[in-house]
Amino acid sequence: MKLTVVTTNAGKVREIAEFFGDAIEVSQVSLDIPEERSVDVSKIAEGKARFAFGALRVPVLVDDTGFSVDALNGFPGPYAAFVLHTIGNQGILKLMEGVEERGARFTTAIAYADEKGVLVFSGTIEGTIVRKPRGTGGFGYDSIFQYRELTLAELPLAEKSRVSHRAQALARFRDWFFRERMPGRNANR
Amino acid sequence: MKLTVVTTNAGKVREIAEFFGDAIEVSQVSLDIPEERSVDVSKIAEGKARFAFGALRVPVLVDDTGFSVDALNGFPGPYAAFVLHTIGNQGILKLMEGVEERGARFTTAIAYADEKGVLVFSGTIEGTIVRKPRGTGGFGYDSIFQYRELTLAELPLAEKSRVSHRAQALARFRDWFFRERMPGRNANR
Repeated sequence: MKLTVVTTNAGKVREIAEFFGDAIEVSQVSLDIPEERSVDVSKIAEGKARFAFGALRVPVLVDDTGFSVDALNGFPGPYAAFVLHTIGNQGILKLMEGVEERGARFTTAIAYADEKGVLVFSGTIEGTIVRKPRGTGGFGYDSIFQYRELTLAELPLAEKSRVSHRAQALARFRDWFFRERMPGRNANR
Repeated sequence: MKLTVVTTNAGKVREIAEFFGDAIEVSQVSLDIPEERSVDVSKIAEGKARFAFGALRVPVLVDDTGFSVDALNGFPGPYAAFVLHTIGNQGILKLMEGVEERGARFTTAIAYADEKGVLVFSGTIEGTIVRKPRGTGGFGYDSIFQYRELTLAELPLAEKSRVSHRAQALARFRDWFFRERMPGRNANR
């Protein structure tokens, strides 16, 4: 079985491939998809998956991830990629200087589209914003987001693929997918 | 002549009404318009105007405005409204603490749609980010953006309606509109 992940972010593809292991072959397609300016990552992912399936006509997986800092009223929210590209992790840490309330969360929406339609699966991880970046793994905000004792950038990829927002969304997708689209196959080999 | 401005922002309507004076009657409609997540305000305004005309079937004017800070790599860009709502002007000033390069600009795209199609007109104003907010007029980032000696929030509305990004875009729209849609009328009465 083959799934096409539509993204320009190689880090996301690595994580999705790691998650599925040998069960599903994952390939990447970079496609310029118009995005809805919404605060709802599920809506954004759904729209992108619909568009990508229309263009490619093969089963596609699309990931949209938001990052929300409580003390910043949910900023950067669905604009995580743009904010990372402009003010970066250093900008987030500067905004959080002197701020005691450090709670934050990642939310990933995974949208799957094939000839039968589009479905969305989501996952969330709660953590805190550290005071200095730590770790070299992952990508994006991973080095400033702490889950239990470690930042997501300090977690080995195999471990991140068990606990992360993306892993939770992928697990929900996988359970549905093996049941509905590959019923002869056992998801938990 | 009547124009419907589609926005939830009363400040924008005030400025547009002030700009046209008695020449054009301006009314406001609040409409929930899906927005494309693009970095190009012209594209966003065009899409919104097309959608609004489709829904309302009367000539509509839509404003989309971006705000770009050089030292922040163009942040907050097209997400000016979301960023204002979350980290606010205080967040921008905190990000700019200790930063010497203070250049910034507003860009407004005005899209006009009627039964003949959609046209977009734009305007830009260059200025600097102040160190403390000044002035009580305007809205949004006006109090932290200095043009020549004053912030946009210190400029009287009549003056802002001559020099601002929005005024420039509206002037371009007006010149075209009086020529093409109201040819019997003199734009510069």
